[in-house]
Amino acid sequence: MASETVTPTLRDVPIGLTATGQRREFDSMGSVDVPADRYWGAQTQRSLQHFSIGGDRMPKAVYHAYGYVKKACALVNHAAGRLPAWKTEAIVRAADETISGALDDHYPLFVWQTGSGTQSNMNVNEVVSNRAIQLLGGTLGTQQPVGPNDDVNMGQSSNDTFPTAMHIAAVTAIDDQVVPRLSKLIEIIEQKADGWMDVVKIGRTHLEDAVPLTVGQEWHGWAGQLRDARDAIEASRAGLYQLAVGGTAVGTGLNAPKGFAADVAARIAELTGKPFVTAPNKFAAQGSLDAMVRAHGALRDLAVALMKIANDMRWLASGPRCGFGELLLPSNEPGSSIMPGKVNPTQCEAMVMICIQVMGNDSAVAFAGSQGNFELNAMRPVIINNFLHSARILADGCEKFRTYSVEGTELNRDRVAQYVEGSVMLVTALSPVIGYQNAAHIAEDAIAKNLTLKQAALASGKVDEATFDRIVRPIDMVGSGLAGA
Amino acid sequence: MASETVTPTLRDVPIGLTATGQRREFDSMGSVDVPADRYWGAQTQRSLQHFSIGGDRMPKAVYHAYGYVKKACALVNHAAGRLPAWKTEAIVRAADETISGALDDHYPLFVWQTGSGTQSNMNVNEVVSNRAIQLLGGTLGTQQPVGPNDDVNMGQSSNDTFPTAMHIAAVTAIDDQVVPRLSKLIEIIEQKADGWMDVVKIGRTHLEDAVPLTVGQEWHGWAGQLRDARDAIEASRAGLYQLAVGGTAVGTGLNAPKGFAADVAARIAELTGKPFVTAPNKFAAQGSLDAMVRAHGALRDLAVALMKIANDMRWLASGPRCGFGELLLPSNEPGSSIMPGKVNPTQCEAMVMICIQVMGNDSAVAFAGSQGNFELNAMRPVIINNFLHSARILADGCEKFRTYSVEGTELNRDRVAQYVEGSVMLVTALSPVIGYQNAAHIAEDAIAKNLTLKQAALASGKVDEATFDRIVRPIDMVGSGLAGA
Amino acid sequence: MASETVTPTLRDVPIGLTATGQRREFDSMGSVDVPADRYWGAQTQRSLQHFSIGGDRMPKAVYHAYGYVKKACALVNHAAGRLPAWKTEAIVRAADETISGALDDHYPLFVWQTGSGTQSNMNVNEVVSNRAIQLLGGTLGTQQPVGPNDDVNMGQSSNDTFPTAMHIAAVTAIDDQVVPRLSKLIEIIEQKADGWMDVVKIGRTHLEDAVPLTVGQEWHGWAGQLRDARDAIEASRAGLYQLAVGGTAVGTGLNAPKGFAADVAARIAELTGKPFVTAPNKFAAQGSLDAMVRAHGALRDLAVALMKIANDMRWLASGPRCGFGELLLPSNEPGSSIMPGKVNPTQCEAMVMICIQVMGNDSAVAFAGSQGNFELNAMRPVIINNFLHSARILADGCEKFRTYSVEGTELNRDRVAQYVEGSVMLVTALSPVIGYQNAAHIAEDAIAKNLTLKQAALASGKVDEATFDRIVRPIDMVGSGLAGA
Amino acid sequence: MASETVTPTLRDVPIGLTATGQRREFDSMGSVDVPADRYWGAQTQRSLQHFSIGGDRMPKAVYHAYGYVKKACALVNHAAGRLPAWKTEAIVRAADETISGALDDHYPLFVWQTGSGTQSNMNVNEVVSNRAIQLLGGTLGTQQPVGPNDDVNMGQSSNDTFPTAMHIAAVTAIDDQVVPRLSKLIEIIEQKADGWMDVVKIGRTHLEDAVPLTVGQEWHGWAGQLRDARDAIEASRAGLYQLAVGGTAVGTGLNAPKGFAADVAARIAELTGKPFVTAPNKFAAQGSLDAMVRAHGALRDLAVALMKIANDMRWLASGPRCGFGELLLPSNEPGSSIMPGKVNPTQCEAMVMICIQVMGNDSAVAFAGSQGNFELNAMRPVIINNFLHSARILADGCEKFRTYSVEGTELNRDRVAQYVEGSVMLVTALSPVIGYQNAAHIAEDAIAKNLTLKQAALASGKVDEATFDRIVRPIDMVGSGLAGA
Repeated sequence: MASETVTPTLRDVPIGLTATGQRREFDSMGSVDVPADRYWGAQTQRSLQHFSIGGDRMPKAVYHAYGYVKKACALVNHAAGRLPAWKTEAIVRAADETISGALDDHYPLFVWQTGSGTQSNMNVNEVVSNRAIQLLGGTLGTQQPVGPNDDVNMGQSSNDTFPTAMHIAAVTAIDDQVVPRLSKLIEIIEQKADGWMDVVKIGRTHLEDAVPLTVGQEWHGWAGQLRDARDAIEASRAGLYQLAVGGTAVGTGLNAPKGFAADVAARIAELTGKPFVTAPNKFAAQGSLDAMVRAHGALRDLAVALMKIANDMRWLASGPRCGFGELLLPSNEPGSSIMPGKVNPTQCEAMVMICIQVMGNDSAVAFAGSQGNFELNAMRPVIINNFLHSARILADGCEKFRTYSVEGTELNRDRVAQYVEGSVMLVTALSPVIGYQNAAHIAEDAIAKNLTLKQAALASGKVDEATFDRIVRPIDMVGSGLAGA
Repeated sequence: MASETVTPTLRDVPIGLTATGQRREFDSMGSVDVPADRYWGAQTQRSLQHFSIGGDRMPKAVYHAYGYVKKACALVNHAAGRLPAWKTEAIVRAADETISGALDDHYPLFVWQTGSGTQSNMNVNEVVSNRAIQLLGGTLGTQQPVGPNDDVNMGQSSNDTFPTAMHIAAVTAIDDQVVPRLSKLIEIIEQKADGWMDVVKIGRTHLEDAVPLTVGQEWHGWAGQLRDARDAIEASRAGLYQLAVGGTAVGTGLNAPKGFAADVAARIAELTGKPFVTAPNKFAAQGSLDAMVRAHGALRDLAVALMKIANDMRWLASGPRCGFGELLLPSNEPGSSIMPGKVNPTQCEAMVMICIQVMGNDSAVAFAGSQGNFELNAMRPVIINNFLHSARILADGCEKFRTYSVEGTELNRDRVAQYVEGSVMLVTALSPVIGYQNAAHIAEDAIAKNLTLKQAALASGKVDEATFDRIVRPIDMVGSGLAGA
Repeated sequence: MASETVTPTLRDVPIGLTATGQRREFDSMGSVDVPADRYWGAQTQRSLQHFSIGGDRMPKAVYHAYGYVKKACALVNHAAGRLPAWKTEAIVRAADETISGALDDHYPLFVWQTGSGTQSNMNVNEVVSNRAIQLLGGTLGTQQPVGPNDDVNMGQSSNDTFPTAMHIAAVTAIDDQVVPRLSKLIEIIEQKADGWMDVVKIGRTHLEDAVPLTVGQEWHGWAGQLRDARDAIEASRAGLYQLAVGGTAVGTGLNAPKGFAADVAARIAELTGKPFVTAPNKFAAQGSLDAMVRAHGALRDLAVALMKIANDMRWLASGPRCGFGELLLPSNEPGSSIMPGKVNPTQCEAMVMICIQVMGNDSAVAFAGSQGNFELNAMRPVIINNFLHSARILADGCEKFRTYSVEGTELNRDRVAQYVEGSVMLVTALSPVIGYQNAAHIAEDAIAKNLTLKQAALASGKVDEATFDRIVRPIDMVGSGLAGA
Repeated sequence: MASETVTPTLRDVPIGLTATGQRREFDSMGSVDVPADRYWGAQTQRSLQHFSIGGDRMPKAVYHAYGYVKKACALVNHAAGRLPAWKTEAIVRAADETISGALDDHYPLFVWQTGSGTQSNMNVNEVVSNRAIQLLGGTLGTQQPVGPNDDVNMGQSSNDTFPTAMHIAAVTAIDDQVVPRLSKLIEIIEQKADGWMDVVKIGRTHLEDAVPLTVGQEWHGWAGQLRDARDAIEASRAGLYQLAVGGTAVGTGLNAPKGFAADVAARIAELTGKPFVTAPNKFAAQGSLDAMVRAHGALRDLAVALMKIANDMRWLASGPRCGFGELLLPSNEPGSSIMPGKVNPTQCEAMVMICIQVMGNDSAVAFAGSQGNFELNAMRPVIINNFLHSARILADGCEKFRTYSVEGTELNRDRVAQYVEGSVMLVTALSPVIGYQNAAHIAEDAIAKNLTLKQAALASGKVDEATFDRIVRPIDMVGSGLAGA
């Protein structure tokens, strides 16, 4: 490699290239023209040409995460005496700019590319290299004095760094998007639940009238599902905290110095403030994407829970006159282009569709996860793209759903009370007193003859009025709290 | 509705609003400020506020298709005397601009919105209305003299027009994207196949050496799969040709004049040049999205076939020295950031990932298709978004795969020949002569003792050399053509 | 092979082996003890030992179908002079017994076996061979005078015959199970629909009150979905009619005589009475299972439709007092072990679960379909097992659903009428007269102030009573028939 | 309820009913004839009639688990003074017989039944009731002196007990089937890995030749995946340990005495020796099946890992002469009915198919999990059936795969060594010395000119022989252990 006799110094050049037209860049296969106002090099350009498929771009969050990887590696290489201070400084500066999103426009690649993510890694290597060259007063396209492979990628492979970036990006999405927005949703549901803890309503099983519970209990049921889902998502980070970096090409760590894996993971932990560690088994970490599959599974399980909740809410709000009508959702917008005055549970519908999408994404992720071969699972882009997609729409969905639907939901207390009064399933409370079969005949009689439960019960001769009034009291049927009997 | 005494005339105003700041628009719920340089109205703005979820926007192709619906409806309403010529002319002009994509910037809504697509329908109604108002010299925000509901949406509901636009967009994606790019891929595969029709190669079943076939036969097998997949995609259009428009709110056609359904479908057929007809059963057409589910199923089946083919190609190209090595794929880019000189089957990998995504999308589409209720399946946006996504990445994927991988694929004829010579499975040809069990023992012997098949056969005493040489001739084992014995 | 000087003659020995203990059988790998009262041989026994996984046995229908293959091959081999009459006769007799199910107890293998189905093919070869030996007075275990490989499997491979048996079994399941039971369900739904064609009910979109339609229209909507699904299932047989037999090991037809493929397909067509033909491209037919994937896709689409219908029915029947309550489903059984008198929509629930299972099966089938390699898709058992499972539970489900739920469903006419009267969405009919915005305000007012629509309309001053009474007539809002406006 | 003046005593009657013909049983809907030799009652019989769909029976493991529930409830009811000792004793005896499987023949119901599992709960109630009646000398069909609803089901609902039984059955399947068989597989893989820790082999990424690792590292990669999968499965039991019993009909605990939930859970924990506890939120526990969905997700993740491993093994064993040929799998059976001497990786194929099935099952489970409504998820049977199916085939699959494939797998050391020698990717080690680009050109040259790496390296002039020999040493490239650099 080139011997540098004079140490270049870092200048404070703002981000940006003012050249126009094309710049010549090269890689091992030869030279390629790239747009002169972009930092990327030959391999990025090749990828853009060969893989302009659909509208799916590699999520920017992957590059932000990659910034941490490049920065940490540079720092560790420097500490090990493999990278001089001035190179390190320049790489770190460009990596920081990558982390911040300031270089987003220079990361244009598509999702559908090489399955290892090499092209995105090279995109980072090239942009950081050229930005570093600019900062050091060098000439873009020369790969001097900071080369994309030999310097920026020093001690690294796409095979170990791309899954590392995936894990960082995934944890970040969980921490910054999913958990906080989900938590706020849980909070508001629990607030509402607490407020309605004494409002007795009819229960429904099999969609059919059942015995009563309180509105608060029902809402706490939803919150309980979401709490469990959040716990599982948080637990899924354990696998994601394990980083592949240091395994290099096939897991053996070839061309990385002793201790590199642990040192880089520690640096990434320090830089991100998250408890990343080196993966104890690099062959599993690079040959599979199992931790990603598991983490997406946790998002999927959140979707399963949210779907049930959004469905419950829209059914309970159905009407206004020909449905269940227990809940009153906020009227955010006219519901129909033809039916004047119609209001629809649109936030619930959006949430249901999001959940369905996440479940479809999950199928893709698991399928992709199963398709690894030997030392590499080459299905990485499709997995990280689906993961970040799912995380984003779940998180945003939770926020909109909360803000524009859950928070403003009101009870139609008259309707709620009416149902409790009318239901014959309160007969269940009589069962321990008069036996299941007698109780059943009373209920059947009430329905067949369109009687109130009391009328039917007294007519049966199996219970007297005083007993009936003492036993069949909805408020006494709802127990207390959430834990059942 | 407003009575217009002076007939406004259409002016030739270019697309665009030069106002800055906000404009006040209204709907039945009140007034809303919208960006003054956008044509959209109150309901679009409400949707933007309530549904900014993730980065998924309703595909522009849906609006282009909607342009046809609005145009056709205006023309039919005019022909029926329900819409004056000057209104019709203005609506048609704005609809044409919508079809052409010239108004794309005015269709900003997200996928995750109301499940009926009403907000996108209202977006079209509002943009067409305001653009028509501009063309007629009116004041934006007044809904005069062309109103979004009463004029642009005349005789329509989102419930019948959105699935109509979905069908138009889906057929267009099939016709313009999927079929032509798939056809070109089939063509090049068949060209290659024809060229290699006489190159004998070893067959493999269970990944294990089997009896020979020709390279051309193998490639024609792939082409056959793709032909069948294309046939099925084309057949799936039959359901998509049936349009819901004319069913209005719930399928009964309320507020649309007699004959509207058939007339509008005929107009759409005329405008698009595609054989659209009115759906004979509007309750099925609006209560379900079964035709969309079926059509996506056909895309899914293409993905199933493409995945097998892309996998075969990359396995056959594996190596260069430690794999199958029969095929030589073009070297489009350096394959590794750490391993110099490595070339990978990246186009195959991209295709495999696309196929996996399409299969995940298919799960989402089918799931969504099952979730209709009563007179509406309110899972439309997630279905059309996945459909157009799948169509696009399959089509683009076919093109890149063809251009950058299949076309440039070469045979490693030495390797191909070597395998045929070395394989012991040619023993199969001896089976009818010496019996299966004797043949099996020869094969086992050859493998166990590392003999050639001929050595083992002669050593067995079951066959003499002349017979062996006459029978065990690879070229005689491949039959002729594609139809087997 | 053994030369037979005396022609054995077929004796009329009833099915069954009276021996006890073990019998020694052999194959190319050596000898194996099998139960003396079973016809199977060494390879079946090896498979039983190696693959006793779970409780999933290869469906008997596969063996019944295989009987046709063996019979047809024997007849064609005989006609070609390759198999003497007495052997042919014996093989045909054993094949017929296989077809009829009389030998079912001799086909014990598991689904989870070799991916080509070879072990099931060998099971058939061994059983037919031994049964033929018995019929001809030979000694079981000698493979004389009728050998499993050389005679019963003459001109065949598992690679071409197993998918052939799959296609025959799949078509049979469609013809004998799915289509007739689905057709009866359609019939009863249409009968009901016709009877209720004039009963006006409230429509519901987004679960919310909408404009009216008739009960008959709603039911015909369901029937329309099912008709389309049936058409698609029937159309999917086209691919299944194409048979792989004649391709032998890799599609070339090695060891099968010229014309074998077409002749055997013709024989199978004749024997089954179904229009089977030889697959024009054996490499596609053996390297993929695309026709199976497509046919299962059609079953999946039926599940999508049935799920919507079963859901609609149970929601419309929800109550009896706190739900929609429009439909009265038959009370087949007590619904609850604790709530006396409770009746649940259990047939609908069973149907929904069946549909979900079929959709899960479909994921497995498509996934498996994508995993072929080179000249074989070695995922056959999982595909045929899921196909026959889906077909069976859909068919049986349709029958039970029809018999125990749909047929006995009644209307709660009072409730149906009540809803129509109470709904404010009838305001839609006023829209063309007073404009959408005015109509919207009336509807909003009625809901906010708990007025009837008429009260609110008159209070608005936008419409007089006569006009209201003339326009707002539910019966005039439902159009006529199914085709909308 | 009947007052019993004389305390019946438990007799030691063996299981079995000698009566023939029919016995009359009754429930709240009337009387029903049942087979006289079966313990079940009216509701079981009704279910058999209404739901004979396909061949899927509710797994016996559900009933065994239910036995624990009935036993624990009886004991707690007795301790609370609600059930006399003699009744308790009889119920416990019949419950124990249910647990042991001795009454399996009396649990005939199908999977496709009511979504709550009520019919299976009633089947248990009826069988235990009648068996108890028999033990107490009563008359079958009288529901005296031990009634199915009032006694056996005392304080219970299907809504809380069925998911309780599901959890018990699921944990049992994990503990008794999945974990032990998976653990044995891990163990043997690690044994093999340890034995081959020093055998250098070529690595492969993107299916293409890469830098070397050892066979032991590769195998430990597989083991690492399986260890993670096992950890996740074990962790998924946390949710399953939480039991719904005590929530009764809707989660409130109506008709169960105070403390029942915790007491019964404690009893179940004691009886099963597993740390079951009462679910803190009964509304979540009964309204959802999220813990089941999550646990199946963990099985799915095992399938994802196993699929990769089984695929790796069969590809590495491909050949014998025209494939990778590094591994030699045991020859368990002849592989082909037409190709003599062919041996196939059948255990790997079976495993791959099992994994695909489990992934399909997982789709069904998640879908079903999302379809709960209000106080009940009525998709229980389809979920528990899929769970137990997946657990069983994974567990059995692991055992067969281990026994008949992994244990007997040998290395083809010559082939393994050959590949390492021939590969040009060893050039990677030169990269830090001569730079990535120079190294790349050497590799490209070697491939293009068919040179050895050393020939090409020396010809390049970038490295001398001594340096080459010092640097390019495969054994030095594999690092040490599993943790990379």
